[in-house]
Amino acid sequence: MTATARTPHADTAIAQAVAAQREWVAALFDRLAAGSRDEPGVTRDTYGAGEDFGHRLLAEHGKARGLAVSHDFAANSYVTLQGRDASAPRILMGSHLDSVPHGGNFDGAAGVVAGLVVIETLRALGIAPRCDVTAMGVRAEESVWFQVSYIGSRSALGTLPDGALEAKRIDDGRVLAASIDASGGDSAAIRRRERHLDPATIRAFLEVHIEQAPSLVESRLPVAICTGVPGNFRYPDARIVGRHDHVGTPRRFRRDAAMAGAEFAVMLDRLWQEEEANGFPMAVTLGRFHTDPAVHGLTTVPGSFAFSLDVRAYDPAVLERVEAKMLAEIREIETRRRVTFELGARASAAVGPVDPVIVAGLEAAAARQGIATMPLGSPASHDSAAFAAAGVPIAMLFVRNEHGSHNPLEAMEIDDFLAACTILADWVMREVA
Amino acid sequence: MTATARTPHADTAIAQAVAAQREWVAALFDRLAAGSRDEPGVTRDTYGAGEDFGHRLLAEHGKARGLAVSHDFAANSYVTLQGRDASAPRILMGSHLDSVPHGGNFDGAAGVVAGLVVIETLRALGIAPRCDVTAMGVRAEESVWFQVSYIGSRSALGTLPDGALEAKRIDDGRVLAASIDASGGDSAAIRRRERHLDPATIRAFLEVHIEQAPSLVESRLPVAICTGVPGNFRYPDARIVGRHDHVGTPRRFRRDAAMAGAEFAVMLDRLWQEEEANGFPMAVTLGRFHTDPAVHGLTTVPGSFAFSLDVRAYDPAVLERVEAKMLAEIREIETRRRVTFELGARASAAVGPVDPVIVAGLEAAAARQGIATMPLGSPASHDSAAFAAAGVPIAMLFVRNEHGSHNPLEAMEIDDFLAACTILADWVMREVA
Repeated sequence: MTATARTPHADTAIAQAVAAQREWVAALFDRLAAGSRDEPGVTRDTYGAGEDFGHRLLAEHGKARGLAVSHDFAANSYVTLQGRDASAPRILMGSHLDSVPHGGNFDGAAGVVAGLVVIETLRALGIAPRCDVTAMGVRAEESVWFQVSYIGSRSALGTLPDGALEAKRIDDGRVLAASIDASGGDSAAIRRRERHLDPATIRAFLEVHIEQAPSLVESRLPVAICTGVPGNFRYPDARIVGRHDHVGTPRRFRRDAAMAGAEFAVMLDRLWQEEEANGFPMAVTLGRFHTDPAVHGLTTVPGSFAFSLDVRAYDPAVLERVEAKMLAEIREIETRRRVTFELGARASAAVGPVDPVIVAGLEAAAARQGIATMPLGSPASHDSAAFAAAGVPIAMLFVRNEHGSHNPLEAMEIDDFLAACTILADWVMREVA
Repeated sequence: MTATARTPHADTAIAQAVAAQREWVAALFDRLAAGSRDEPGVTRDTYGAGEDFGHRLLAEHGKARGLAVSHDFAANSYVTLQGRDASAPRILMGSHLDSVPHGGNFDGAAGVVAGLVVIETLRALGIAPRCDVTAMGVRAEESVWFQVSYIGSRSALGTLPDGALEAKRIDDGRVLAASIDASGGDSAAIRRRERHLDPATIRAFLEVHIEQAPSLVESRLPVAICTGVPGNFRYPDARIVGRHDHVGTPRRFRRDAAMAGAEFAVMLDRLWQEEEANGFPMAVTLGRFHTDPAVHGLTTVPGSFAFSLDVRAYDPAVLERVEAKMLAEIREIETRRRVTFELGARASAAVGPVDPVIVAGLEAAAARQGIATMPLGSPASHDSAAFAAAGVPIAMLFVRNEHGSHNPLEAMEIDDFLAACTILADWVMREVA
């Protein structure tokens, strides 16, 4: 009933300016898919042909539009609408351009294209921004390739941990440092922890991303505003060593590595349920979980078992608590089943808290634009978390998407994507005016 | 204090006659290993080069010793010391000559050689047996190859189930019927359910076998007398179908096939513990238990899972009870985790009860020979069970063996083996005199 302080003409103008870009947006997504097609789905492999193609396409687009295009020593790409004050903290919008093998076209790329849409919207509305406004194409976010998180963003921020450059790609064994150099980067600079992006010079990092679960589909809403990016701990190459025995071996003599693995999984599942029952959302994934294909068989008690583990949560205390309980339970399983867990290398990523002021600003922008949204904890890890860890204010918008991500069936509607772009453009416009 | 009804001279004579054969026994085991060497260990593949070699060696030995050598349409081998009365029910002693891939030299073969030792012992003692006394080399006991139990013994008895002849070898895909024919058998006769061995003409089937668990090592005894051969039910190629999802997918959306598999395993382990707590020995083996190597990875919730299952027990009621509970629990897991179990083909083998009169006779023989034994439920399946199912009285002797079986480290001492042969020879001598 109360009139709100709306400026209806400006709001309509933003939505219309975004909507007017529908054609080239759809065409750009199509070109991206066509150039990285690998049926089923697309493959934009980290520091490989697929990802390189994505970055070339982004640079071409930027140059064709007369925008400033640059790269850093991790071969990340930056397409910039230059601001009136080159020294004012810039706005970065973006996400990654790589994909999992046989993945979908939108996981990652949508966030880069959203940045381009916002830039074109500012120009269409005749706005000369106060500061630089940049769409960033981030490298190497999909950790399935090198089993290291946030390679591109952390390299740019000078926070890539020791040893990461020696990681090997799981498919072809190429070393990360050499792969970066082959894609036009400079791994030596990363090794020296040089910082291409100084957090003090970044006003905010804003990431649009497809939702990777069906919460928005379930809620019939186009866009969600992120409440936080989970941190994780990971054991990508863990093993359980027991003893191979004859199928008839009595229970008391067995050292069954697969049963130990099963018990381990069910234990983690129980910890997960306990945490969520107490109001702490998290997730446990045993992506690889298997007996040894070289020796397993119908009539042999498995003496070896392998698994990968990813545990993620929004609160560092939850991660710490779950890992401590897990390690204690492992010791009990080892004793009870006379097996040995060899957890192997441990990796982790910090929790990425979102900036509450930006979130409030995005909520206000959505309200102004008449776009219904919901708050949503990110199920997945995102580059935003690496920026947050470096002290950059971050926020994320999720776009409704059927069938999850990391598979060829990702189904983001352009209308939903443009709704997210409209909210983002509204916020950025007010920020840079 | 009380004098027992011993006949020390005769007893000593048997033990001495057995001991005198040590040299050729050791040489025969060595020749068998040398001819089927496949480092690590030996491979005597079912209806393949390794098993064929074992049968050739057995036939050569029999002929060299002037014994009658014959084969049946499953290419089983029979080496016979002919009796005074060709129509009297015969005594069969034997076991299988095949092995698992990279297995040990004694699993199976020891029982065939034991039969040969008993025959030579009878001859050494100048005994002309009342009935035929035969050492039988059985084909195709190791079900790892064709995933069918007791192929050789059931073919001879005319009890091989429908469809078994169409089974394919898991390594090279060869069909069982053609493989039997290639090894000199006649699969058409098996298909017609012709019976080479009429149970009514067999006094007993006696099987010496290495122990496949360390019970005798633990008890410091050389020989055990079997109290029963387990029956089983098997699902060699079961699958769980869920949905592949992104690593961050919240719990309520997941259809995690690996977690369902883990829960299934832990449930079976619990049923196992409950049965044994109630005094019903059994065993559960999930030999293959794995995510799909073509698609699994660190950042993907597993949407498919595969396993093989072998459940064995000495009481048919236990098998029936456990399978019924298992199927009910599967339905609950399917509902709770929104996955589907595809159990695939089911196979089973009947429980093999031992003949109590023969067991008592073997116990008496051991006592006469001064050899300490213990009663022991067979952990494994054995051809004896197929004979028992056909109505033949059976008994088994287990020989102490370190490191289990189905692996290259099998370690049977010849002294322990000859102790088992001595007990068996004592029993047979009294039976055929």
